[in-house]
Amino acid sequence: MKILVINPNTSEAITATIMAAARSAAPHVEVVGAHPSRGVTSVESHIEEAWGTIGILEQIDLAETSATPPDAYVIACFGDTGLAAAREAASTPVVGMTEAAIFTAVTLAHRFAIITMPSRTIAQSDRVVEALGIAHRCIVRAVDVAVAELEEGSGHLEEAFAAEARSAIDEDGAEAIILGCAGLADLVEPLSARLGVPVIDGVAAAVAFAAGVVAQKLTTSRNGAYGTVDGAPSAVELLR
Amino acid sequence: MKILVINPNTSEAITATIMAAARSAAPHVEVVGAHPSRGVTSVESHIEEAWGTIGILEQIDLAETSATPPDAYVIACFGDTGLAAAREAASTPVVGMTEAAIFTAVTLAHRFAIITMPSRTIAQSDRVVEALGIAHRCIVRAVDVAVAELEEGSGHLEEAFAAEARSAIDEDGAEAIILGCAGLADLVEPLSARLGVPVIDGVAAAVAFAAGVVAQKLTTSRNGAYGTVDGAPSAVELLR
Amino acid sequence: MKILVINPNTSEAITATIMAAARSAAPHVEVVGAHPSRGVTSVESHIEEAWGTIGILEQIDLAETSATPPDAYVIACFGDTGLAAAREAASTPVVGMTEAAIFTAVTLAHRFAIITMPSRTIAQSDRVVEALGIAHRCIVRAVDVAVAELEEGSGHLEEAFAAEARSAIDEDGAEAIILGCAGLADLVEPLSARLGVPVIDGVAAAVAFAAGVVAQKLTTSRNGAYGTVDGAPSAVELLR
Amino acid sequence: MKILVINPNTSEAITATIMAAARSAAPHVEVVGAHPSRGVTSVESHIEEAWGTIGILEQIDLAETSATPPDAYVIACFGDTGLAAAREAASTPVVGMTEAAIFTAVTLAHRFAIITMPSRTIAQSDRVVEALGIAHRCIVRAVDVAVAELEEGSGHLEEAFAAEARSAIDEDGAEAIILGCAGLADLVEPLSARLGVPVIDGVAAAVAFAAGVVAQKLTTSRNGAYGTVDGAPSAVELLR
Amino acid sequence: MKILVINPNTSEAITATIMAAARSAAPHVEVVGAHPSRGVTSVESHIEEAWGTIGILEQIDLAETSATPPDAYVIACFGDTGLAAAREAASTPVVGMTEAAIFTAVTLAHRFAIITMPSRTIAQSDRVVEALGIAHRCIVRAVDVAVAELEEGSGHLEEAFAAEARSAIDEDGAEAIILGCAGLADLVEPLSARLGVPVIDGVAAAVAFAAGVVAQKLTTSRNGAYGTVDGAPSAVELLR
Amino acid sequence: MKILVINPNTSEAITATIMAAARSAAPHVEVVGAHPSRGVTSVESHIEEAWGTIGILEQIDLAETSATPPDAYVIACFGDTGLAAAREAASTPVVGMTEAAIFTAVTLAHRFAIITMPSRTIAQSDRVVEALGIAHRCIVRAVDVAVAELEEGSGHLEEAFAAEARSAIDEDGAEAIILGCAGLADLVEPLSARLGVPVIDGVAAAVAFAAGVVAQKLTTSRNGAYGTVDGAPSAVELLR
Repeated sequence: MKILVINPNTSEAITATIMAAARSAAPHVEVVGAHPSRGVTSVESHIEEAWGTIGILEQIDLAETSATPPDAYVIACFGDTGLAAAREAASTPVVGMTEAAIFTAVTLAHRFAIITMPSRTIAQSDRVVEALGIAHRCIVRAVDVAVAELEEGSGHLEEAFAAEARSAIDEDGAEAIILGCAGLADLVEPLSARLGVPVIDGVAAAVAFAAGVVAQKLTTSRNGAYGTVDGAPSAVELLR
Repeated sequence: MKILVINPNTSEAITATIMAAARSAAPHVEVVGAHPSRGVTSVESHIEEAWGTIGILEQIDLAETSATPPDAYVIACFGDTGLAAAREAASTPVVGMTEAAIFTAVTLAHRFAIITMPSRTIAQSDRVVEALGIAHRCIVRAVDVAVAELEEGSGHLEEAFAAEARSAIDEDGAEAIILGCAGLADLVEPLSARLGVPVIDGVAAAVAFAAGVVAQKLTTSRNGAYGTVDGAPSAVELLR
Repeated sequence: MKILVINPNTSEAITATIMAAARSAAPHVEVVGAHPSRGVTSVESHIEEAWGTIGILEQIDLAETSATPPDAYVIACFGDTGLAAAREAASTPVVGMTEAAIFTAVTLAHRFAIITMPSRTIAQSDRVVEALGIAHRCIVRAVDVAVAELEEGSGHLEEAFAAEARSAIDEDGAEAIILGCAGLADLVEPLSARLGVPVIDGVAAAVAFAAGVVAQKLTTSRNGAYGTVDGAPSAVELLR
Repeated sequence: MKILVINPNTSEAITATIMAAARSAAPHVEVVGAHPSRGVTSVESHIEEAWGTIGILEQIDLAETSATPPDAYVIACFGDTGLAAAREAASTPVVGMTEAAIFTAVTLAHRFAIITMPSRTIAQSDRVVEALGIAHRCIVRAVDVAVAELEEGSGHLEEAFAAEARSAIDEDGAEAIILGCAGLADLVEPLSARLGVPVIDGVAAAVAFAAGVVAQKLTTSRNGAYGTVDGAPSAVELLR
Repeated sequence: MKILVINPNTSEAITATIMAAARSAAPHVEVVGAHPSRGVTSVESHIEEAWGTIGILEQIDLAETSATPPDAYVIACFGDTGLAAAREAASTPVVGMTEAAIFTAVTLAHRFAIITMPSRTIAQSDRVVEALGIAHRCIVRAVDVAVAELEEGSGHLEEAFAAEARSAIDEDGAEAIILGCAGLADLVEPLSARLGVPVIDGVAAAVAFAAGVVAQKLTTSRNGAYGTVDGAPSAVELLR
Repeated sequence: MKILVINPNTSEAITATIMAAARSAAPHVEVVGAHPSRGVTSVESHIEEAWGTIGILEQIDLAETSATPPDAYVIACFGDTGLAAAREAASTPVVGMTEAAIFTAVTLAHRFAIITMPSRTIAQSDRVVEALGIAHRCIVRAVDVAVAELEEGSGHLEEAFAAEARSAIDEDGAEAIILGCAGLADLVEPLSARLGVPVIDGVAAAVAFAAGVVAQKLTTSRNGAYGTVDGAPSAVELLR
């Protein structure tokens, strides 16, 4: 089984962090990574999501026409940038890290919190939370630092995330914490130890969940919202 | 006052229909139209929305750097493709035709229906309906024909829309009808006459609403979801 | 185009403040004002809303039978007192200031707050927020002073409103502020300057929105909730 | 214990039907009836609700200043016309027949239906359903006949109500039926027998529920939405 | 009329407190109490709810086969443990104390709060609140002490409940307070006096409400979720 | 990795069908099955759910104290009988087949339908759907046959399920189908072929999802709703 994890920004460093998390959650699976050939160095705004979506479509096009297309895809960006378009483009299932993290949290806790970054991306988390209808159980909070800070890893953000997570637990009754950004996997262990509740990395959750969907031999429904699309221009050519 | 109406597909014919509707609803306003220089001929899927969004960003970039930037923008595509990104990119307010049509329907009726086209775009209507929280009053139905059929106008779709609207009135208790696609303005008069309820064209609703927001001397909040974006690449260059 | 703005309380001073705001938002429109001939000096309770509603019906009756009936009506009371009854009574569209303010806020911000007054009227704001389904994006807060304080203008309330709005921004993530009472238009400029986010006066929003609905040549649906009413006694006679 | 049941329309015949139902559900309680001295013969529109509300306030004023004020009030009009204003005006609890019918239905069934009349009053039922948040379990349907038809009793409507209720059971999964108008109590027995599910009359439900609230020695909270109101004019004088 | 109040834990002391509250709210009614012959001494977890449910079924079986079966049942455990199963098993209506408390609060206040105990049972309160759809008006808070503390009465918890209720009033706008545990009836009077808002004991609310349902001569719908069950083994034998 | 699949009814035949489905979805995993030593032959009512929950607790107790406790548990009963109690009792994650099927459907489709059986269990499906908040995307329908019919396999139900699923697709816009009962896995292939949309068996979905949660090295949060429970009696002894 092969799963392609697409980071919609162009940062090699963040892609590397993502891939480490991705591989840890999927024994028996070949997990490969990709990022757009051109675009934005981080996805923190709706404009950057537009670029990220084109970049995702580029990478799916390349994968689908490769010698060994993946059995499933993971979108490794909190807010699940471009997820619906990716589902139309890919022949195999596409899993968003935000949706997968929420599925995992629902399984482990009654109420839980997303700690996203930076603050302006609360709207992107809200979008997924509302689309799933889970707002009654999910609190969205933020640490207001730029994604660019993750270029050197996330260790220096441990205190900030611990403080915000502690508030979510004490004030909002959160019983589990979702790390609201790809590239934060290094925080899972220290935060779990400090907080005493499950800490969920969406990339790991998504790869694990994608493997499960593949095992069920299912793929995206073509009868409705995610039907195939004929005649759209090539994202590969656009970004060339 | 100048309002720029952006059709996110590249069809000249549909842009022309849109502009006729747009101008009818805004006396005292200079209404101008635009469409992307490159992209898709219709927006019926999430992939095409990705292209449309880039195209909208291109047209906003061009308008913002022109000699006379508009006082407001209208996104003329049902489902409000690229609306959030447009709000970040534009210095003046951006109105989506779906949101504006719903505001108008709420003012005229307790329950109302969207008749969109084609069926697969129900998900796009649902997205706006859910983001506004109005699902308890808004039914989404569809006539399953491709947007390409609007190249020659919408008159030949009158029967199909009348039938679906009649079902919405009789079975779902709809008291007003929203035409769920740009380029359907020609149907407003005949359907109103046949159905005896208000029939709303979102392009007209959006231009009228945008003029009202401008009159209030307000613009998009930069404190949060729609903050300005620094350093994103140029959509104009991408599509060149 | 003529729009009649009805203040459902009997205060001349508040009506004057309302009319100033109303006119500022509608160039090209004749904006006229009215208030009940008899009733309550402020609308802060459900009992006062009952009086206000009868007063609104009186003024609509008078306007409808006048030589030049208006093209639209605005109800200038936060909570949209009597809005549904007004829609039945008037031959042209009726816009509530609360609904219009919310439509405007939705266009400018992802999350926003209403700052109403006094605290007991939170229930009236909640009523509109729930009817629109927008509670997931709209926080309702209050400054607990009586409407009677507005007889001399709203300037002395600037600090109280600024403090509550600041809490809404910092604690609730509000990106725009709705002033939750007619007669607060004087606060728009100073609060906008201090807070750095859009500050919305519902009266201005309603007049601007009403002009847009008129421009679309639409009126209230008679097929359902707002059908015409035969045989009800005359509010004009009741209040004589 | 004394409970005052207020019919907000001026029909003696409907008041008589209401009182029969009211008394049947409250052994050990003195149940008395009232209707406004002036107003509308039926409450089917929002305008008529405005009249009904003033009439309710009149009757509460009279009762509160009588020698023996009631221990609780019931508003006997589907849609709970004027309920919030009544709660402010009355010194003892006020129960709406719609709310009470829904509480009863929730106790007896997972899903249930309101069959209201005429169709235009669906909006009034929706208002109560939304305020309670019970739309996920409550279907609203209508038999489209005028309330005036109840002047001679409701027996002739049995077939129409049976047919609509049967559809609710078969198509919507309703497990209990609420009769959505005061004055339909005569249908409880024949419809129960025909349908094989509980059939609930809101007047009986409200009187029974009101007796229970009185037994708990509780009354309306004055801290918030239903605080007392000073200085409002007298509805008794208005309707004199 | 006879109402059987079932405490699903095995504590004689808590049963006694419950019965005092139950009897106070139902003049004219014979109120009898019961608890399982075997099970758990308190119900604070989902596991204990499983035991409580079997215990409730045991007591219903015994009552139904007794010489004088009750006219209604009350489940005296916050969270309404086993309510749906009880409705299937009993031939007469079954009222949950949580549902009844909420019905009462809705009648007396616009917004209200549940103060439950201990904190982990917030999930059980949420379950009832969500099933009723009332989350937009109901805040759930907790005092984090074990139910076992109620063995000696609840007087020593007055300060803790007063503090939490005060926060609900001041911070959340609660206008009434529901005591979120059976066995807290002793707090109704002192907390009402201190807080100045209605304080609701669910056991009293449930007995009063149950008497009202019986007065309406209604029972549980057998057409759907609460149909009768054939062939299930005997809870009486299981617990013997 | 070892996953224990618990069928809460006592049917050997249904357990065998469940285990076949369970194993198909989890290569690399040891999947073992269990059912209560005593209880009910099918779980179609809330009473039977009470028995099933005790049976699940029994099997978890036995597994936890065995030489090789499982790495995760699956509850193989639509409606996720006893899921919350199981999460408290088990030291490792517990996955409900209904939740897992919904997670899978959300990943493959915008709107989807559950086809459960028999009709009375719609309430149990609704319970899970509401707890997840997914009602806006999930339709619940039923084929009204008893679970006992599955003793001989599900092949004879193909026509009934195909018809109901077809209605869900055509009338409700379902893009994927969830089979709403354990023991229906044999229908996945023929229905997929006939309907042309993904058909999801919850048992397979749950085993696959559970394997993914284990791979993430996470377990149930003990801080809140699913905290450990001390002092509850032994379900093993109860059922002995």
